[in-house]
Amino acid sequence: MGTVVVGYVSKPEGDAALERAIAEAKLRGSKLIVVNSHRGGGEFDDAAARKAEEAMASVNATLASAGVEHEMRQMVRGFEPAEDLVSIAEASHAELIVIGLRRRSPVGKLILGSNAQRVLLDAHCPVLAVKAADD
Amino acid sequence: MGTVVVGYVSKPEGDAALERAIAEAKLRGSKLIVVNSHRGGGEFDDAAARKAEEAMASVNATLASAGVEHEMRQMVRGFEPAEDLVSIAEASHAELIVIGLRRRSPVGKLILGSNAQRVLLDAHCPVLAVKAADD
Repeated sequence: MGTVVVGYVSKPEGDAALERAIAEAKLRGSKLIVVNSHRGGGEFDDAAARKAEEAMASVNATLASAGVEHEMRQMVRGFEPAEDLVSIAEASHAELIVIGLRRRSPVGKLILGSNAQRVLLDAHCPVLAVKAADD
Repeated sequence: MGTVVVGYVSKPEGDAALERAIAEAKLRGSKLIVVNSHRGGGEFDDAAARKAEEAMASVNATLASAGVEHEMRQMVRGFEPAEDLVSIAEASHAELIVIGLRRRSPVGKLILGSNAQRVLLDAHCPVLAVKAADD
């Protein structure tokens, strides 16, 4: 059985990535690993941790009702999200990583986020980049 | 029937993108549009044009033997390859764009090519980024 790995954040682009990752896992008959990675440190306080846990519980419920075999991995261990995502994908011999991209700003900012760039450059498997739906 | 669009260049990353695009088109039961775009101008001389045509003929043969419904689009009209790729994907209501990425250099260059960035940022559908196989 193959494995699809998705980087999840509780934001529109994270939801878009999750939705597409579910579809890709179903299409391929693969297992889905949902990675929610926080670097930790000052900004990641109790409230942030609680919010992240609630978001993951909601994702877990979504996946259960979608009928997709899945694992949840929430990590706060001082790594950049891109590092956690790429290392989990490699360790699980993933066939695909799905990431969400922020939409280009109205003024047309032309730079990809550093996490997205790192995943795209460092991943050992193809990376599917998904944008949030238009508002 | 859905449509997968692939940006093809006659380089290892272009071959990797094509190979994966064929697999994705088969998986989805979709048609494949192969886009080979050259900006044109001074560097695109007769020899370059002939080489590009030979490469596309070889791709066409590969696709015919793979049994994938496909179209070939070779364009030299002054646009950046990213512009041609995104506009063809939009016009054909593509469900997926496949692009090839160069491997990170041994010294670890951390920047994505500008064409790849533009496709990732401007595409109206998900973009699958594929790297060439290791040597």
